[in-house]
Amino acid sequence: MIIDRINSPADVKKLSSDELNILAADVRKGLMNRLSKRGGHFGPNFGFVEATIALHYVFNSPEDKFVFDVSHQCYTHKILTGRKEAFYSDEHFGDISGYTNPEESEHDFFNVGHTSTSVSLACGLAKARDLKGGKENVIAIIGDGSLSGGEALEGLDFASELGSNFIIIVNDNDMSIAENHGGLYKNLKALRDSNGKCECNLFKAMGLDYMYVPDGNDIQMLIEAFKKVKDTDHPTVVHICTVKGKGYTPAETEKENWHWHMPFDPEDPNASIGGGENYGDMTCDYLLAKMKKDKSVVAMVAAVPVNIGFTEEKRKEAGDQYVDVGIAEEHAIAMASGIAKNGGKPVFATHSSFFQRTYDQISQDLCINGNSATLLVNTASVYGMHDITHLGIFDIPMISNIPNMVYLAPTCCEEYFAMLDWSIEQNSFPVAVRIPCNGVIHSDKTFDTDYSDLNKYKVMSEGEKTAIIALGDFYQIGEKLADLIKEKTGTAPTLINPRYITGIDAELLENLKKNHDKVVTLEDGILDGGFGEKISRFYGHSEMKVYNYGLKKEFIDRYKVEDILISNRLTPELICEDIL
Amino acid sequence: MIIDRINSPADVKKLSSDELNILAADVRKGLMNRLSKRGGHFGPNFGFVEATIALHYVFNSPEDKFVFDVSHQCYTHKILTGRKEAFYSDEHFGDISGYTNPEESEHDFFNVGHTSTSVSLACGLAKARDLKGGKENVIAIIGDGSLSGGEALEGLDFASELGSNFIIIVNDNDMSIAENHGGLYKNLKALRDSNGKCECNLFKAMGLDYMYVPDGNDIQMLIEAFKKVKDTDHPTVVHICTVKGKGYTPAETEKENWHWHMPFDPEDPNASIGGGENYGDMTCDYLLAKMKKDKSVVAMVAAVPVNIGFTEEKRKEAGDQYVDVGIAEEHAIAMASGIAKNGGKPVFATHSSFFQRTYDQISQDLCINGNSATLLVNTASVYGMHDITHLGIFDIPMISNIPNMVYLAPTCCEEYFAMLDWSIEQNSFPVAVRIPCNGVIHSDKTFDTDYSDLNKYKVMSEGEKTAIIALGDFYQIGEKLADLIKEKTGTAPTLINPRYITGIDAELLENLKKNHDKVVTLEDGILDGGFGEKISRFYGHSEMKVYNYGLKKEFIDRYKVEDILISNRLTPELICEDIL
Repeated sequence: MIIDRINSPADVKKLSSDELNILAADVRKGLMNRLSKRGGHFGPNFGFVEATIALHYVFNSPEDKFVFDVSHQCYTHKILTGRKEAFYSDEHFGDISGYTNPEESEHDFFNVGHTSTSVSLACGLAKARDLKGGKENVIAIIGDGSLSGGEALEGLDFASELGSNFIIIVNDNDMSIAENHGGLYKNLKALRDSNGKCECNLFKAMGLDYMYVPDGNDIQMLIEAFKKVKDTDHPTVVHICTVKGKGYTPAETEKENWHWHMPFDPEDPNASIGGGENYGDMTCDYLLAKMKKDKSVVAMVAAVPVNIGFTEEKRKEAGDQYVDVGIAEEHAIAMASGIAKNGGKPVFATHSSFFQRTYDQISQDLCINGNSATLLVNTASVYGMHDITHLGIFDIPMISNIPNMVYLAPTCCEEYFAMLDWSIEQNSFPVAVRIPCNGVIHSDKTFDTDYSDLNKYKVMSEGEKTAIIALGDFYQIGEKLADLIKEKTGTAPTLINPRYITGIDAELLENLKKNHDKVVTLEDGILDGGFGEKISRFYGHSEMKVYNYGLKKEFIDRYKVEDILISNRLTPELICEDIL
Repeated sequence: MIIDRINSPADVKKLSSDELNILAADVRKGLMNRLSKRGGHFGPNFGFVEATIALHYVFNSPEDKFVFDVSHQCYTHKILTGRKEAFYSDEHFGDISGYTNPEESEHDFFNVGHTSTSVSLACGLAKARDLKGGKENVIAIIGDGSLSGGEALEGLDFASELGSNFIIIVNDNDMSIAENHGGLYKNLKALRDSNGKCECNLFKAMGLDYMYVPDGNDIQMLIEAFKKVKDTDHPTVVHICTVKGKGYTPAETEKENWHWHMPFDPEDPNASIGGGENYGDMTCDYLLAKMKKDKSVVAMVAAVPVNIGFTEEKRKEAGDQYVDVGIAEEHAIAMASGIAKNGGKPVFATHSSFFQRTYDQISQDLCINGNSATLLVNTASVYGMHDITHLGIFDIPMISNIPNMVYLAPTCCEEYFAMLDWSIEQNSFPVAVRIPCNGVIHSDKTFDTDYSDLNKYKVMSEGEKTAIIALGDFYQIGEKLADLIKEKTGTAPTLINPRYITGIDAELLENLKKNHDKVVTLEDGILDGGFGEKISRFYGHSEMKVYNYGLKKEFIDRYKVEDILISNRLTPELICEDIL
């Protein structure tokens, strides 16, 4: 295999035209080996093989600097820059992350996992180069729906001001995770249809020079184009058209399902991988039933419909009561606020990590105005996504300290739907609900249907001496801790489900002083700025002893949940050891 | 005056063409009366008089719904919708806010004060209308540089998907607060130069219909245009060209200085309004001196150069070491991260309230990557801006709970510059520094020049029994409190300057236990998720009594600082009363 001879980009430059094509086939074997056994971003990587080879053939990485947007298309780049073992040798799968990572290689400049950041990050590299009098090329690579994100559009708009070498590769595969949304994709189509000649051109309207490459999976065509813009003295867009999932028929035909894929059998890719209850499907079914009764209910997503189970079929069923705004989370929150203001009932869902893009919109567009939109915060948990760029452990400090917001943490399936239903039907508060993330846990208890009497905690079992306030996904740890304390001391502690992340039940906390001397708080997120600290503040100058349990404030990467729980002393046994 | 007959939009519709022009002159008298005596957004309001009259002439507010971007151009709208006394009768100035406000009038739909939100908010109103089968017009009004903000661009991109009535008035006055930045403004110029006929058209590239109105200060021309788009069945941009500050020569010529203006004498507008030391000028002079010695230092702003004193003259002096990214705060943070990654020394400054737009960029683009950019957080204080949309009391919970960030709070001028200088020169941490906001307070103490030994608090005077940990702008309250406690009890307390918002000095806190039984924390911001709660958590299960002082988590509007300090018991006297 040609890949055997490739240990750095310099080796790519030695290949003939035919050898480059063989290299592309070799690369796909490596991608298939890793992706079929380990899972990962399939479509983006398979579609960007040729373009990556051409980039390394023409430019001189790392002196010339590539910045990959989201970086979920960077696997070929990793293969060509000294990390091929992680694709061809199963025992080396763990050597690399799924994203660019400066700790792995001098060819990677940023840890990136959120969309729409590449142009702005690369603008910074270019600006510093210009101040230092450098001459290297700086290349941002963006596509897969990322163009519609506010940060990307800000970056595109600013780039023309650089006035120096700057190359933006627009990887147009006509897809986001699901289908693309937004007017600009109509312009991309018009550009494709006119072979790049259409006068109305988004990139030119942003002040950028423009070049069109019809076949972004043709290495020679790409090489010619890249050679033309190499060492350019001004910002230029190179619009290349690629096929998402290129080279593997199921991925080319079922693009949405193969954007990211679980491990699979390449010979039988549709083999069922089990199933069972999950909150995505259940939330979708609940919302569809609700929509049928009430025309004003709207489910909203930002390019990640899977968060609430909206498959293509279910999207059709919802019709105009389903809105995918594309990658545009800021817009989504403001639009949800507007819908609520005008009498609609919007429910917007995305990952905890992606809500980070909407802090100002939650504060200004939604909460100052007190509009009753519902936000569903998915994978908001140590049990959620484990990549450093997708952590779900920061949303409590981020969301819960914004005034007017009501942030709820259900402890099981039934409580989740009770909270969601209340939130949709009320019109007094902006409400966010954490979607449980520790499996679908059922309870036969009765849960309140009205949460408008804010910040009332629920005593689940009354005891004495120690009170355990166990929030959301960590409620079950609280239950086990209660059992263990009773077992060890003979005295049953009080177990409390606080439900509300955003406030203190002062009356209940005050009452606990009567026959408790110890309060333990448990929260599924970092402690800094979180829920437990508010309880500590409340009891600060009383005799009550307070123990806050949660996670340390740090960025963790590709972790094992058990390790994190243990290092934060978050098991019933370790907590018992601490407090008794 | 014609204005005497105008009590609602219906009265506007009765006027003849000539009377409408007289009304415009009358409105300007009201604007001048309020703005000269009270100060406020001058240029945006003076430029938008005719357009507002034409909008109310053609459309039927509040059934037809106007959403004003930033809403700093809404004064004429307030005058025409029943709130004219607040402009013509000095005793009624206090009746209204400077922004749209649903509590004032049914003609206002949102509290708005940040830029770039109007299109998305209005999309929400339109979507809810469509679900309900309504027929009213929804009109977003955006300009003054707001187009370059990510949320606005996301909104423009999405709007074409509405497929129903939606009107976007682009108020093009060729200005942001300072001059415009970004490639799209070149497109606006091309459109102006071609009378709207230029084929390359940003709005069409976003999938929107487009109409051009060359004179946006000509009421009849506007009325004709608005009549054409009224009841349109699809999203349309109406690009109108107005003169910022129209009708008052100083404001037309000195647009930047008259964007917002202090109270002034209309007959002698340039009369000096005093001066004295301020952090804007001092920071600018410091940075300019630094830049001369070091070509890699870059001052960055997002359309608000006044935050760090960069007047037009000083911008010229800085040359390519000064970057105004336009209204594009997300881009600014990512670009700063890129500059630092490539060896530059970026310093980005904006208001505390506007940093809210950059939570994800601070977390993902900057802090995960650990790049050593410096962020200067201005008006981050209860002493800062007093409008509900511009509060500076939320940045501690927002910024300080992000891992890897070092957030510093100086207690005086000399400490601020020591921290800033260290931050620029180090290359290990992303650093944010609060610009002091309680006046320029000098100290003859010596301050550290190296802050890389993180989270080391400074004991300013050693005492016993009570320790006061007084952060940043509230350090002076801490000093007074220390004196008062000594006076009342005969025992001097310990006074500590914690300096670091982002971490705990565990060793120092542990040592305090020896001869202290009480700790008082003081912070200039809300308590929830803030600094003091971390101290409470630390001491949670010890004997130490902790009292956290700061602000209640709430949106406050047009407040008096003294009132807020008293209601939060934030005076030395009240604190003494509580703790003794």
